[in-house]
Amino acid sequence: MKKLINQRENIVEEVIQGMVKAYPDKLSRIEGEPIIFRKEKKQGKVALISGGGSGHEPSHAGYVGYGMLDAAVCGEIFTSPGADKVYRAIQEVNAGAGVLLIIKNYSGDVMNFEMAAEMAAMEGITVKQVVVDDDIAVENSTYTVGRRGIAGTVFVHKILGAAAEAGYSLDALVDLGNRLVKNIKTMGMSLKSCMVFSTGKQSFEIGDDEVEIGLGIHGEPGTHREKMTTADHFTEKLFAQITQEAALKKGEEVAVLVNGLGETTLIELFIINNRLQDLLREKEVTVVKTLVGNYMTSLDMGGFSISIVKLDQETKQLLFAEQDTIAF
Amino acid sequence: MKKLINQRENIVEEVIQGMVKAYPDKLSRIEGEPIIFRKEKKQGKVALISGGGSGHEPSHAGYVGYGMLDAAVCGEIFTSPGADKVYRAIQEVNAGAGVLLIIKNYSGDVMNFEMAAEMAAMEGITVKQVVVDDDIAVENSTYTVGRRGIAGTVFVHKILGAAAEAGYSLDALVDLGNRLVKNIKTMGMSLKSCMVFSTGKQSFEIGDDEVEIGLGIHGEPGTHREKMTTADHFTEKLFAQITQEAALKKGEEVAVLVNGLGETTLIELFIINNRLQDLLREKEVTVVKTLVGNYMTSLDMGGFSISIVKLDQETKQLLFAEQDTIAF
Repeated sequence: MKKLINQRENIVEEVIQGMVKAYPDKLSRIEGEPIIFRKEKKQGKVALISGGGSGHEPSHAGYVGYGMLDAAVCGEIFTSPGADKVYRAIQEVNAGAGVLLIIKNYSGDVMNFEMAAEMAAMEGITVKQVVVDDDIAVENSTYTVGRRGIAGTVFVHKILGAAAEAGYSLDALVDLGNRLVKNIKTMGMSLKSCMVFSTGKQSFEIGDDEVEIGLGIHGEPGTHREKMTTADHFTEKLFAQITQEAALKKGEEVAVLVNGLGETTLIELFIINNRLQDLLREKEVTVVKTLVGNYMTSLDMGGFSISIVKLDQETKQLLFAEQDTIAF
Repeated sequence: MKKLINQRENIVEEVIQGMVKAYPDKLSRIEGEPIIFRKEKKQGKVALISGGGSGHEPSHAGYVGYGMLDAAVCGEIFTSPGADKVYRAIQEVNAGAGVLLIIKNYSGDVMNFEMAAEMAAMEGITVKQVVVDDDIAVENSTYTVGRRGIAGTVFVHKILGAAAEAGYSLDALVDLGNRLVKNIKTMGMSLKSCMVFSTGKQSFEIGDDEVEIGLGIHGEPGTHREKMTTADHFTEKLFAQITQEAALKKGEEVAVLVNGLGETTLIELFIINNRLQDLLREKEVTVVKTLVGNYMTSLDMGGFSISIVKLDQETKQLLFAEQDTIAF
């Protein structure tokens, strides 16, 4: 394995240290814990926590900061953080108005985050959750009952983060979050497996001329394999499935994310966006915001996902609200 | 070649379209020309233009916007844009106070940008230039007489862009730029060659257990090859050469950039930054700003570079000035 690391068992710890040293004005960490939190706390605000396995950088610590998350809990690579770590993060960021957990729908994350919420409840801290299941590719998967949570989660961080900053109550955030998640649809594809740094093994095998449609961000199987062809072909294919699932209608307003999975270049992502925007225009859908780049990766996997979120006046305004994070 | 493109001969055009469609509020393009310019022009300001071959995304179009560049001229992959294209960009962005070209030191770029300046001069537009040669690895190279210009160029875009916004004259910008460039030192290393999309060929061959120290951003040879080892080892090695070259002294203030070349993950870049910041602290140098990420890539090359820029009060203030671009 030719990767720029030191010791395999120390990867996540060194990444956390390296991030906090890079942005000491924005980020802090709990000493000895895999938890990055926002340096400037705000009393009386609902605190937002996300996280999960590492290997998806800049997710999730890249979204910690004003207008987005209050803390990110970082598990080992592709491994959910323990309930005790999530609990520790809750204690740290609770500012008197309750804590909201934003959980990507994987069984391990759901279990650990829920257990942490129970531990906090015993201490009198009110904790609620929003579970994100934006991946429309498959109904159940390797680590998941129901649909998986993938790159569209970034929109949940942004919109709920802005709402929390604006003074929404915990219940109002849960309500908004549940409505929002229903309006986010994502689907991805992969050209190349990823090297799992912690094991030194590729996450799956794939032929030189084939691609996997609908795979998950840990290399979980998608719907099927196809022969490699053009960027336009795959953009059209994913778009067709997403728009069907979203029941996208003329005149609606959306935000889109063209997310790179790791080794895919911006050249490729912009070529995909070029076709995607034309497809949206043909549908007479109005794109109010576009993001193109590596927002939720799978180590060095090759491929991309497209997320489309349908907006209303409320979520649109929150999407455009000010934020100060290193990755949005 | 398994890459998400359509036709090889259309790559740069589709990337330009895809970028402008992603950020229509910030970026425009000259129809039919490989030129991206800032949507909101400011009369009476010196206009800044950079560019060069494509394949380094988000450079350079990602730095077009308020407080940085006024236009980026995009050549074919790893190929300098023609003088006529640069000339066309000068005509577009000239706002009455002259135009500054920021050129990475490659013979082709220097020739084409200088020729464009002469064409503009005949039309009465004053054009001057700053040539960036921050790569300390080798003295002459495949496409270069003197030292190459690489990732440290991003600091030139930021600092001169802020100065232009603040009303510096063309001569003052050239003076500041020349002083600044002397204070920027960069060195990189590579683990993996890149696939040149336009030819379908790898830019060079490298063994499974070796790395190349000091290579250029088009795969030009560096100083030598070594066996692969830890991230810390290579960080220390590059740091030693950079600090020697920069004659870094206790008490000085610097900004640093840990730049990914393409497929290298943020995990690796933050591990590198972790060691780098400790080394800087040991030298009792004060880091006022750190950037970690893909700022100037080489398609899907594996590897990174470290840039260190020594700051004074003037350049420090300009570095922190407001900007509104998609990639800084």
